[in-house]
Parts: sequence; structure tokens; C-alpha cells
Amino acid sequence: MIELEVKAPCRDLAGLEGRLRAMGARRIEELEQVDVYYSHPARDFAASDEALRLRRENARSMITYKGPKLDRDTKMREEVELEVEDLERMALLLERVGFRPVRRVAKRRTVYALGLVHICLDRVEGLGDFVEMEYTGDDLDAGKGRILELKQALGLEGNERRSYLELLMEKG
Amino acid sequence: MIELEVKAPCRDLAGLEGRLRAMGARRIEELEQVDVYYSHPARDFAASDEALRLRRENARSMITYKGPKLDRDTKMREEVELEVEDLERMALLLERVGFRPVRRVAKRRTVYALGLVHICLDRVEGLGDFVEMEYTGDDLDAGKGRILELKQALGLEGNERRSYLELLMEKG
Repeated sequence: MIELEVKAPCRDLAGLEGRLRAMGARRIEELEQVDVYYSHPARDFAASDEALRLRRENARSMITYKGPKLDRDTKMREEVELEVEDLERMALLLERVGFRPVRRVAKRRTVYALGLVHICLDRVEGLGDFVEMEYTGDDLDAGKGRILELKQALGLEGNERRSYLELLMEKG
Repeated sequence: MIELEVKAPCRDLAGLEGRLRAMGARRIEELEQVDVYYSHPARDFAASDEALRLRRENARSMITYKGPKLDRDTKMREEVELEVEDLERMALLLERVGFRPVRRVAKRRTVYALGLVHICLDRVEGLGDFVEMEYTGDDLDAGKGRILELKQALGLEGNERRSYLELLMEKG
């Protein structure tokens, strides 16, 4: 329920993929994700650093709430996510209670696993290429250390704490 | 997406069940339903005549929005309903975006079908026994006529337009 991840821009996803394979990472899936972010009827999600999202991921439909970020080095935050039967009906329900769709974020994501870390190679429509590393275990302190080590080992620079949504909004 | 139903109190569910069987109705399911209704973070659902509900129905979990009632003779209203993967997680997500659980409604529902009408025999915890007749076809005018005819044929009196939630709230 606490999501611990670090994100960095990446100019050479193919090279990074090679380094991951050399380190023994295994490719687990290839995802087409189309997200729609919603505004709240009475709260400014940009100010509260929260997000509500509907996601189509290949054939699945999901709703996700993300809480405010909890530290400075990572994008660690609460995440509440579940699958829903029908994305259009969930969207209609949200609109009926006052949520409004504000932005669409589409990407192709290739997911690798290395120990307890998932490494996502993202090609984001209109933004470019990024890598997200997410810790999937229970020991958040250890996970943070592991992610930051791995980031260095992969030669990744930069720490992008803004979400794709925020980056697209800033781009206008 | 438009729910057309009529509800009436019933003092003798067993007798009604006999009359339904004699008319050729067939029993389709037996449901344990536990509903939790939510308040909106910025809108007074009692005043707007709307409702947002999470329902556990046997092993299924559902979220439902109900719009304001659309006429005087029935409880016709918009309904947006879908299944969700996990009821507790959906409840947590709703609470994170400011919805609050306000009331629990539990009932045992026996559902009969007669043509395009579903007849629900409800034993509602703390309220008593009721019958709800819901039209499942597309022709709402015909459906309304059919339901009102059937209600008379079954000897049902009274037209309860208040929801179980409202009845429980009034009871205190």
C-alpha cells in the first residue's frame, strides 16, 4: 500500500535494457497503459499532491488513488489500487459524483524484475523515455537503499519526482 | 442505465411467494446483500436525491451510483453499477477522496422473474419485509404499466418511494 519508486529520464532505453539483462534481470511483461487523471469536486489535487486515475492496461481496467509524496529522495506515497469490471462505467460514475477528466497519459511499458525491484522502461507519448524503479518488498528502508544503488549501477542520472501527469501539464 | 422499480411493504412474503409461483414466476436467486452508503465530500446527497453505495452480494463486490428519482409513481432513476475487485480497497479509496460511510443496510433477497419483471422479496434488517419490482427491458413506458398491473394483481398496497437507507435514517 506504500509505493516506493524512483524515476529518471533515459536517453537510451535499448542500452539500458542490455545492461539490465547483463545484470540478470528478467523481462516480465510488456504493457500498453492509457491513463486518465481526474480532478476532485472540492479539493485541489495539484495542491494536495494526490491523484485519482483510471487506467486501461492491456485488457484490464483499474482505479488508483495516490496520496501525497512522503520523502524527498523518492516518489514514495500511499497507493490504493484495484481492478474494476468496466472502465467506461467507472468513468461515468466518477463524473456523476463530480470528478472531471483532466488529462490523458499514454505509454508503452516494458517491465523487468531484478530481485525485489521492478524496473519499468517507459516510452511516454509526448514526453519521451523514462525508467521507473519500484521496490516490491516490505522493508522500505532496505528498498530505498537498493533502488538508489541500482540506479547508480545502471548509470542513471537525474531524479524526476514529478509524475508524467505533472510533466505533461507543465509542458502545456 | 435507467432503473425502473416500484417498492411496497409486504406483511406476508410467504403468501406472496405462493401467488408468484401460481402466476408462473420462476425463482432465480437468493442473495445476501450488505450495503454501505457514503456521503459526498461537497454535496448533500439527501438534498440532491442521489446515492453512492458499496455492496457485498454473496461473493461479489459492487459500486453503484443512483441519480435523482425521475417520476412520482415509481423509483425510476439513473443507475451506474459495476463490479470491483476488492470491497475493502474500494472503501479505502473512497475514504481517501473524502467520502464517508454513513449507513449500513443488510438484507436477504429472493429474486423471482416473470417476463421482463424481476420481483425481489426482501427481508431488511431492522425494517421488515418489502417487495421490489424492477423492469429489466428497454421500453420504460410499457415497463411502468406492467409493473403497476403486476402490483395490483399481487394485491400489494402502498408505494414506498423512500430507499431502505432513507427509511433507516428516519427510524433513527
